[in-house]
Amino acid sequence: MPGYELTKDDYLKRLARIEGQVRGLQRLVEEDTYCIDVLTQISSVSGALRAVALGLLDEHVTHCVRDAALGGNQAETDEKISEAMQAIARLVKS
Amino acid sequence: MPGYELTKDDYLKRLARIEGQVRGLQRLVEEDTYCIDVLTQISSVSGALRAVALGLLDEHVTHCVRDAALGGNQAETDEKISEAMQAIARLVKS
Amino acid sequence: MPGYELTKDDYLKRLARIEGQVRGLQRLVEEDTYCIDVLTQISSVSGALRAVALGLLDEHVTHCVRDAALGGNQAETDEKISEAMQAIARLVKS
Amino acid sequence: MPGYELTKDDYLKRLARIEGQVRGLQRLVEEDTYCIDVLTQISSVSGALRAVALGLLDEHVTHCVRDAALGGNQAETDEKISEAMQAIARLVKS
Repeated sequence: MPGYELTKDDYLKRLARIEGQVRGLQRLVEEDTYCIDVLTQISSVSGALRAVALGLLDEHVTHCVRDAALGGNQAETDEKISEAMQAIARLVKS
Repeated sequence: MPGYELTKDDYLKRLARIEGQVRGLQRLVEEDTYCIDVLTQISSVSGALRAVALGLLDEHVTHCVRDAALGGNQAETDEKISEAMQAIARLVKS
Repeated sequence: MPGYELTKDDYLKRLARIEGQVRGLQRLVEEDTYCIDVLTQISSVSGALRAVALGLLDEHVTHCVRDAALGGNQAETDEKISEAMQAIARLVKS
Repeated sequence: MPGYELTKDDYLKRLARIEGQVRGLQRLVEEDTYCIDVLTQISSVSGALRAVALGLLDEHVTHCVRDAALGGNQAETDEKISEAMQAIARLVKS
């Protein structure tokens, strides 16, 4: 089993931290923080979200695609790959 | 006064919605939702965050840069522009 | 054989068109074209390059990963997946 | 005069280098180079293009916006700012 992915708990911890950061953003806006400082925070939240997305994508390719393919199921493999490619395209543009 | 920017309240509402979306992401992970569906949700949150960032950047350029410049303050104008460019560079890469 | 990928010839044609667009950019700069118009052109070139990249990535996952996995070669599959994930991470940030 | 922008010649040199890189990409595809290596090259070209775009944007804000604003022309300032914001939004998504 490849060991480089995050566990479910890691994802939950990361997302809880991101939720806290978004709450922090609201505080910054409420306190009329200088907008450049708010922007810096937003870039940090975006980066954290992207890291979660890349982790999940890795999970998908490493498990869903890999397992279907190593199991010899061509149709399912192709479907999993197609879903992965669409998710990647959305991610690259988002 | 240009009227195309969001009000403080609009930002707070958008950020509260984003916070709710991030909480929703945690639920999805907890319930072992298919990772492609989680990824779709993340792309949507990223897009919402980027919209907030572009709004704040507009605010900065439309107010901070514009006001300093129309007020004839060259040094402050240049500083505001330099801050804007750094925020844009971070945004483009984040 | 999945039929949705581009052929080698398609890639060459697209890249030749992108090369022409980059030559066009130099002409625009030489003729002191208004910088916003140059920027619009650059966004178009970036989009075209990204489309080529997504096509190649699809190729990699659809052939290299899929073939290694359907062939039952776990070590090679994992290496191909790892290469794909690194390419995706670079792409998402570039 | 702020001195941090590129000269016209710098832009032309950078674009000529990017043109050469795109020609190199065609060679890589022609020679059936491993797609991951082509992707790495594409990320490098995209990064170079983005650097040119950020330079031009800086130019626009530093000259067009700043000059209109310091010249006291509010209508022109607002138009230049609006053009800049649209270019930034395209850049962030491209």
